[in-house]
Amino acid sequence: MGMVDDAVLPLPTSAMNGHARPLAPLDASLLKITRAETLKDVPTPGTYGFGDIKTDYMLVMEFDAANGWSAPEIKPYGPLALDPASNCLQYCTNIFEGMKAFVGSDGKARMFRAQENMKRLVSSAERMGLPTFDQGALLKCITALVALERRWIPAEEGHSLYIRPTMIGTKASIRVGKSDSAMLYTLVTPVGPYFPISPSIPHPTLAGVSLLAISEHVRSWPGGTGGYKLGLNYSPSFVPQGLAADAGYDQVLWCIDLGRDGSLISEAGAMNFFAVIKNENDEGVTVRTPPLDGTILPGITRDSALRLLQAHADPASPSPFATSLADGPITISEEPLTLTELTRAADAGRLLEAFGTGTAVLVVAIERIGYYPSPGDAAPHAIDAENAEVATKARKIMDIVMQGARKGLGPIGKALYEKLGALKDGREEWLDWSTVCE
Amino acid sequence: MGMVDDAVLPLPTSAMNGHARPLAPLDASLLKITRAETLKDVPTPGTYGFGDIKTDYMLVMEFDAANGWSAPEIKPYGPLALDPASNCLQYCTNIFEGMKAFVGSDGKARMFRAQENMKRLVSSAERMGLPTFDQGALLKCITALVALERRWIPAEEGHSLYIRPTMIGTKASIRVGKSDSAMLYTLVTPVGPYFPISPSIPHPTLAGVSLLAISEHVRSWPGGTGGYKLGLNYSPSFVPQGLAADAGYDQVLWCIDLGRDGSLISEAGAMNFFAVIKNENDEGVTVRTPPLDGTILPGITRDSALRLLQAHADPASPSPFATSLADGPITISEEPLTLTELTRAADAGRLLEAFGTGTAVLVVAIERIGYYPSPGDAAPHAIDAENAEVATKARKIMDIVMQGARKGLGPIGKALYEKLGALKDGREEWLDWSTVCE
Repeated sequence: MGMVDDAVLPLPTSAMNGHARPLAPLDASLLKITRAETLKDVPTPGTYGFGDIKTDYMLVMEFDAANGWSAPEIKPYGPLALDPASNCLQYCTNIFEGMKAFVGSDGKARMFRAQENMKRLVSSAERMGLPTFDQGALLKCITALVALERRWIPAEEGHSLYIRPTMIGTKASIRVGKSDSAMLYTLVTPVGPYFPISPSIPHPTLAGVSLLAISEHVRSWPGGTGGYKLGLNYSPSFVPQGLAADAGYDQVLWCIDLGRDGSLISEAGAMNFFAVIKNENDEGVTVRTPPLDGTILPGITRDSALRLLQAHADPASPSPFATSLADGPITISEEPLTLTELTRAADAGRLLEAFGTGTAVLVVAIERIGYYPSPGDAAPHAIDAENAEVATKARKIMDIVMQGARKGLGPIGKALYEKLGALKDGREEWLDWSTVCE
Repeated sequence: MGMVDDAVLPLPTSAMNGHARPLAPLDASLLKITRAETLKDVPTPGTYGFGDIKTDYMLVMEFDAANGWSAPEIKPYGPLALDPASNCLQYCTNIFEGMKAFVGSDGKARMFRAQENMKRLVSSAERMGLPTFDQGALLKCITALVALERRWIPAEEGHSLYIRPTMIGTKASIRVGKSDSAMLYTLVTPVGPYFPISPSIPHPTLAGVSLLAISEHVRSWPGGTGGYKLGLNYSPSFVPQGLAADAGYDQVLWCIDLGRDGSLISEAGAMNFFAVIKNENDEGVTVRTPPLDGTILPGITRDSALRLLQAHADPASPSPFATSLADGPITISEEPLTLTELTRAADAGRLLEAFGTGTAVLVVAIERIGYYPSPGDAAPHAIDAENAEVATKARKIMDIVMQGARKGLGPIGKALYEKLGALKDGREEWLDWSTVCE
């Protein structure tokens, strides 16, 4: 646990507390470990789906407005007892993070930029009116949980221990308003690649997904909560995701139509979206990703990809990549990107690559994007037995053509996939991004 | 229970079930009642806040993809045991309804348009990808719960037993996607008026609320989920509600700026918004409320108010009201209403009334609306110690001036408040809106 950033962070405060007595901060030194009587068998990697396995332990701490944070406890994994009127069940004051621990060839477990997850969790807590906490203290406790669950971390390539810190509002009243009590818990689960790899495409860098661009359902909007990692940003996607699947696509390409320059591209499923477009002067390429304008998740993999590419593009700094990634210079752009721009680039043969990034997937190729040139004419919600054929005919498909490769990640996506993978399991180091857990 | 609509409704189906064996429908005839060993004391009305009291019982039923619905059970109120990975805790597949049971002077308990709540709950379930159910069966079970909890219904004016059906997704996996299992439970809680009545304004029809129109936070959007009663529509309002409170207002007036005709008025806090505007030709008034375009909740009180006013305005049908409600004819409009239109009406002395409607409040007067003429210049999120004065100065206030009355509900709002109150506790009847529970 010695590698965790020990900087003193502000103590949690609570506007809900009328007493002069200070609230107890989250204190990692009070961590209590209650051992399970028997331990479970660790299943063979490849035999389970993403998120389905329960390990032996979970980390739990509670906040109430009178006392502050309880002593954190690692205890046997099991059900939570929640009042039926709980704020989290009634009004969805639920936030979470997604992190991973990897085992390297040196046998050590590592987390990747975990401080960024702690920071984002606090930002989510503030947006939901939930109590905040000492980020370093939580990270110490999570590190202890990962160390205790070390035997659950699969060593296979593309496998890891997924870590899910979660905070829920536990105020036991249906009165509409902030929760002045909360439970902060963390579970871990061994995972393989998020998108199953088929026998014909055995390697993650060769697997790609298809997206259906829709506008009838929007994931987020200006002034909404799409820029925070809140549980409530996810369930509204389940039905639209089913529409995309029914139409033969893997995920939804979320768009926002602000009535100006056409539909803005937002996110790809639950991933950040990247496109590599050949510049119009034929000199070099531009890596495009939508800006952090509050409507998209500030992904940590997104940020890592941008920072690696920026370092590569900067002639004043040594490149993190061993080879050239493109013919000519690479420009990085976080300007808004419209579906119209993307289709024009595809039509002109300039859309070289597209990929999604996220903790769950790392980097995944996008092979094609389906879209309706006239939204509303043949909308996904019209897809039923009668309208399916009409909708399919009205749909156009944008094929993303990789330079020199028929399928999977193109040169930039593949370089990011490999670099991030090497940083995460400790084969390589860059900045202070990787933290040893034990 | 004999008064509940017994019409045969479609059996629940589940696309998640691969078996040929039919899923068990929700069957009210299987209702099991497990009695509590001791019963709680019923507190004196007026001594508790909205939603804080737990009664003796709750109604619980569960769905799983292999079997369908379990036998419903009424059992002692207590905590639910939920897996930490539950879909409802991670991704907010949580829906609910708000209903009330009233005791009339005849001693009978009644629910108001409860079938509409069942219909809306199914609509919410479909939007969240949760299992559906036989609406009549659930209503029978809820009626049995209300009958069992009869002693908890306060008889005081403005008091009732609030009923909260809730459904949560219980799939115990963090894999992002629909929950193929669910728990459907109902709790009840005795409530008084939602907004506390001060000693100087002792009657609900004389109490009014103030609203702060904001545009920096947006409750809903075309293509979003604002038209469904989902738990996730509520928690994003908690922080903005605090901003309004800090600025001296009771609730937020939600607006949506689609960049065309200025900010559209959406909802008032968690209520539907109504305004009464004197026509420009000085002949009669128009009752305005935003349309059900998918961005606002299809409120049952909203619908009831509109239907009562439509019947009143229709010369071919007998009016539900004993007296005239306005000088001249009443027009009812569900066209979009902008903040600009509202401020112009107020400036011209034509904004006669404004009120909010909802199950929790019934009808509540809106006395004034604060707004920022140039959104962004002095935004609510800029309200801190340094900027509070600037923000306050930049803010304008729209006063809603009642005809002949200085405070509280105007003639139309008051007529609706009194009529709906009389229908709800059985002093009057109209259509089949009120259902006896025992």
